[in-house]
Amino acid sequence: MTTLFKDSLSVINVGLAGFAEDIAAAGGACVALEWQPPAQGDRDAAWALATIFNHSQVEEANALAFGRFASAQPVLVDVAPARDAIPGMAGGRRIILHAGPPIAWPKMCGPMQGAILGAAVLEGWASSMEAAARLVETGSIELEPCHHHGTVGPMAGIVSPSMPLWVVENKAHGNRAYSNFNEGLGKVLRFGANGAEVIDRLRWIASDLAPALRATLARTGGIELMPLMAQALNMGDEVHNRNAAATSLFFKRIAPAMFETNVARDAAAKALAFIAGNDHFFLNLSMAACKAMLDSAADVPGSSMVVAMARNGVNFGIRLAGTGTQWFEAPANPIDGLYFPGYSLADAAPDLGDSAITETAGVGGFAMAAAPAIVKFVGGTSTDAMHHSLRMRAITLGTLASFTLPSLDFAAAAAGIDARKVVDSGILPVINSGIAHRQAGVGQIGAGVTYAPMACFAAAVKTLARQIGASAT
Amino acid sequence: MTTLFKDSLSVINVGLAGFAEDIAAAGGACVALEWQPPAQGDRDAAWALATIFNHSQVEEANALAFGRFASAQPVLVDVAPARDAIPGMAGGRRIILHAGPPIAWPKMCGPMQGAILGAAVLEGWASSMEAAARLVETGSIELEPCHHHGTVGPMAGIVSPSMPLWVVENKAHGNRAYSNFNEGLGKVLRFGANGAEVIDRLRWIASDLAPALRATLARTGGIELMPLMAQALNMGDEVHNRNAAATSLFFKRIAPAMFETNVARDAAAKALAFIAGNDHFFLNLSMAACKAMLDSAADVPGSSMVVAMARNGVNFGIRLAGTGTQWFEAPANPIDGLYFPGYSLADAAPDLGDSAITETAGVGGFAMAAAPAIVKFVGGTSTDAMHHSLRMRAITLGTLASFTLPSLDFAAAAAGIDARKVVDSGILPVINSGIAHRQAGVGQIGAGVTYAPMACFAAAVKTLARQIGASAT
Repeated sequence: MTTLFKDSLSVINVGLAGFAEDIAAAGGACVALEWQPPAQGDRDAAWALATIFNHSQVEEANALAFGRFASAQPVLVDVAPARDAIPGMAGGRRIILHAGPPIAWPKMCGPMQGAILGAAVLEGWASSMEAAARLVETGSIELEPCHHHGTVGPMAGIVSPSMPLWVVENKAHGNRAYSNFNEGLGKVLRFGANGAEVIDRLRWIASDLAPALRATLARTGGIELMPLMAQALNMGDEVHNRNAAATSLFFKRIAPAMFETNVARDAAAKALAFIAGNDHFFLNLSMAACKAMLDSAADVPGSSMVVAMARNGVNFGIRLAGTGTQWFEAPANPIDGLYFPGYSLADAAPDLGDSAITETAGVGGFAMAAAPAIVKFVGGTSTDAMHHSLRMRAITLGTLASFTLPSLDFAAAAAGIDARKVVDSGILPVINSGIAHRQAGVGQIGAGVTYAPMACFAAAVKTLARQIGASAT
Repeated sequence: MTTLFKDSLSVINVGLAGFAEDIAAAGGACVALEWQPPAQGDRDAAWALATIFNHSQVEEANALAFGRFASAQPVLVDVAPARDAIPGMAGGRRIILHAGPPIAWPKMCGPMQGAILGAAVLEGWASSMEAAARLVETGSIELEPCHHHGTVGPMAGIVSPSMPLWVVENKAHGNRAYSNFNEGLGKVLRFGANGAEVIDRLRWIASDLAPALRATLARTGGIELMPLMAQALNMGDEVHNRNAAATSLFFKRIAPAMFETNVARDAAAKALAFIAGNDHFFLNLSMAACKAMLDSAADVPGSSMVVAMARNGVNFGIRLAGTGTQWFEAPANPIDGLYFPGYSLADAAPDLGDSAITETAGVGGFAMAAAPAIVKFVGGTSTDAMHHSLRMRAITLGTLASFTLPSLDFAAAAAGIDARKVVDSGILPVINSGIAHRQAGVGQIGAGVTYAPMACFAAAVKTLARQIGASAT
């Protein structure tokens, strides 16, 4: 100690920058290291984390879960009404699925409530929005998360029994996942709009578009979705908020085959024009593919791999492979983004929708480096986009060899979020997202970048550590 | 002089690195500046250059030429047989157009000769390749460059009277440009293949594909090509050797409309499947659009702007806006690239085709930064691709605001090559190119990057300087 202060010192300051500033002010040399304690200071989470870091049971479980995820082969195999595709929606049950973790009707955000009322009218359960509201308030319509039925829906994520769904089968594992059809932009149900124009479009999707696509799919046979997504990642998409290339590639696969069906020419022309006119059309296919990939990794005891991230417009929820069907929730973060003229953060509903299933699978915000043009939609620069993709490598279990990022010299996309690494590093999963107006019916008012809340991952790690501690005793 | 050597010296060495090494070996400090004399040491060209650098007549002419080019609006307006579209091919004339500057039959490379013989059989002028060869050798078939008829064709660039052409009109200037149809990859006429499979495909293109597209175009009305190309540049294409996005976007425009025509369902399905199966399909549309843009800048006396670069498989030729129809030629450079398995540089025909019209218009190699995935096809890294685009800024007159490069944070593409800047800087226009086997019929054996030869630009600058000197006296 007597010698320590005789020599000139080279000091590294970890954490709070104030100490470093004091040393510098006193004429000393000091390097300030930006550091935060794990779990943003949640002591219990940090302790739980320490018990399961480099834990052989977790490592083995993660290897198994990630292996199943990385070897998935999602194939679009059919189009079918929800009541036919999903067992829990059959038999005339009055049920409506919504995005995110479970939430009771009174707590739902405006767009989700608006969309549920629209679906009730679409189904013929009520003849007006007021009548629909009474049905929901009296519990005559059941409300459950999409995720509880192998399904994912963007924004409000509403699925009612008559709605046609994409049916995606993971050929490597045998599981199936579902998503609804993309309605385009403007006044659409998923942003809470429920006027006549919206209901009419949904009726046409069910009566014309879906049968045309079902007949076309019967001609093409199943369509492998990972190769389409991989190509799209090399064509400027991140297959969440930018699906311009993926939609075009999908369109190229189906248009010639539609001529070989019995679909009437005018109906076919209208169906194709609808798809060609909506660069987001592939989003729901991307989501169903990601859900099919991730569901094959679910239910692996001990695994800290995140298999779902979803938002109900109030809370953000995640599920781990190792903790079954349990949701770990926290209030959803606001979205930093580009707002359409006349709107601002004050008008925005909180982060909403099941579409964060794409980030959970390593695309979307995780693959932003593939999509420099996305920054025109969500803000930032193309350099930011690269940095997002690079940073996600610190919190993931591996990479998907078939998903490559051109601007990073074709590095494979980082995927398979490890909840432990999120808690340890403080690096939060990045999510590209559309922004809904907080009131039903207004629609999309922007798009931006947000982050999954730390509290979800801290809670998940605590629960996983308790389970592993219990199984170890 | 006596004081000079008393102080320690900081030396900058310009040019040959040997001097710098000597100084460093003697213990001195020396910065070596990489520099070459203008025109790669061609004294006359350097002198000519000095007389027209910052010359008001040239600057004004370039502003006029570049302005016409940058304001062009190429629109696909029709599909028509060459004999109907091009006045010089009407009236039963036995004429075949080829790529690049003029060249006599005996000097042509293998692929071009093979393609010409195939076209003669296609036209019914001969019943065998031997008979076709006799017709050509005896001068019974006229051979002229595509560029002499407002036309551009990739690789051999063969256009015969019955072949359907894309008709592109520059709505801003009223001029028209033409290109033939893309046959796909494998055994195709443009690489010199001329077997039954090739001729049959060309017959089907004329009898089925072209009429189907003509009828569809009549439904859609003219299709603006610059917006399609601009979108494709934001989707990983450089619209020369990568046209995956542009082809998809074009496909999306026409497929719904084809259902609204009277084209038979099976013919339509086959036509659409052919386009959907060929990611290069849009190339010929890109070329015709670039030709239409550049032709509006031609014939501006005094301008040093390059309005055409083209290769006939032996020589590389350029034309300036200020020197009318004159070609400035030099032997074509070899192509550094990726060869298909079993082939090497020794098998390659020299640089071939009119497709360098894309680089002349600021896309292709000039826009490589937009297309990192192109490096999988032509070699190099995505960083190389960015550097190519940045370097071209040094030899161009301006940028095209509507063509943006995402990985350079949406910088506008450099365009409008100034022959003076090429001669002055020694920076040669970069060109992405397919590589043909030197023998007719083998087809494509690779793709790569090459450069326009300096001698073309040196000769052009000398001629322009002579003309301006003459007009000034």
